[in-house]
Amino acid sequence: MKAGGKKGFMVIISGPSGSGKGTVVKEIFDISDKFAYSISATSRQPREGEIDGKDYYFVSREEFEDMIAKGEMLEHNYYCGNYYGSPKEHVYKELERGRNVILEIDVNGGMQIKSKYPEDTVLIMLVPPDADTLEKRLRSRGTETDEVIAKRIERAREELLFTDKYDYVVVNRDGTIRECAQSIIDIINVVQEYSASRNAEMIKDFFEKR
Amino acid sequence: MKAGGKKGFMVIISGPSGSGKGTVVKEIFDISDKFAYSISATSRQPREGEIDGKDYYFVSREEFEDMIAKGEMLEHNYYCGNYYGSPKEHVYKELERGRNVILEIDVNGGMQIKSKYPEDTVLIMLVPPDADTLEKRLRSRGTETDEVIAKRIERAREELLFTDKYDYVVVNRDGTIRECAQSIIDIINVVQEYSASRNAEMIKDFFEKR
Repeated sequence: MKAGGKKGFMVIISGPSGSGKGTVVKEIFDISDKFAYSISATSRQPREGEIDGKDYYFVSREEFEDMIAKGEMLEHNYYCGNYYGSPKEHVYKELERGRNVILEIDVNGGMQIKSKYPEDTVLIMLVPPDADTLEKRLRSRGTETDEVIAKRIERAREELLFTDKYDYVVVNRDGTIRECAQSIIDIINVVQEYSASRNAEMIKDFFEKR
Repeated sequence: MKAGGKKGFMVIISGPSGSGKGTVVKEIFDISDKFAYSISATSRQPREGEIDGKDYYFVSREEFEDMIAKGEMLEHNYYCGNYYGSPKEHVYKELERGRNVILEIDVNGGMQIKSKYPEDTVLIMLVPPDADTLEKRLRSRGTETDEVIAKRIERAREELLFTDKYDYVVVNRDGTIRECAQSIIDIINVVQEYSASRNAEMIKDFFEKR
């Protein structure tokens, strides 16, 4: 029996390049309509084919800094001369509507959001089954040099060290996209219905209301 | 896709008198064979009809103190002149066999075990839907005085204050025994397959094994 709690959760999905994050997230939206997507904002220039308000909200550096100053970002990072972050407005609206919002962001962003909103955040790490599979996937794209691949593997190692700070881990073996998406949906169903963090307040009121 | 981890979990089920704990636990064993039961030890005298090794392990006060001294108890408490506790031996054997062991114990015992074995313990609080239902259930037994009922309600309030230290909450509304048992099974399935605490080590080894 559900313990209640209508508001959605922020579902952080992190995982190294090669974990298959983007594909699994698309699959979740194919299976379920209980989820909404958080669109990131960035101060970098759009690449060819990228659409403002779909791939990213493209804003100027000044606009981005202004949003940070006004507290309009759930989390943000600065990489290679550009800002990246998750604007609150759209996320909040979806949460209030009871939808779970998926944020496909890195471990830094995930930890920022969890520390600010511990009761409303679920951290899920998507991982490849082993380092060899990760390398094979990165090479199969065929576009990167050995040096770039070595850097990505090193970065993957760093990201995966955060696994013990995460709540749940899903392993994406080759050919298990659908299964991984269903796993994430199953996890969110259990968290939404039974998580103690959301229900503790309700239960404390329990006797006061008599 | 499962992240692995064959060992079972210690599933602590706590909840005040009137939460329906005992009935829900019996139902879990009717539905699933993935669970084993932990039998408590006590130094109190057996009551009529109680069977040694089924209801409790009945031991002397000296034997109990000896078990504590030898570190053979997962947790223990002392109430009204008697010891109560969970012996490790049987629980460990079942965990190694991959079965989840249900411990139907109070919040003190639950917190003791979680602090000693955080990665292997899941804390579930079973709660009545509201204080009036709790009182109704306690009165329907027809055997207790108003004073005893008032004490039990006060004790329930104290126990429920631990809810935010627990991992999951299941609400036992009237007539939902089967649903509650299934909820607990669903929670354990998700924890067993996806909990990050169990998988973090595996992932740290990930790159070392290459």
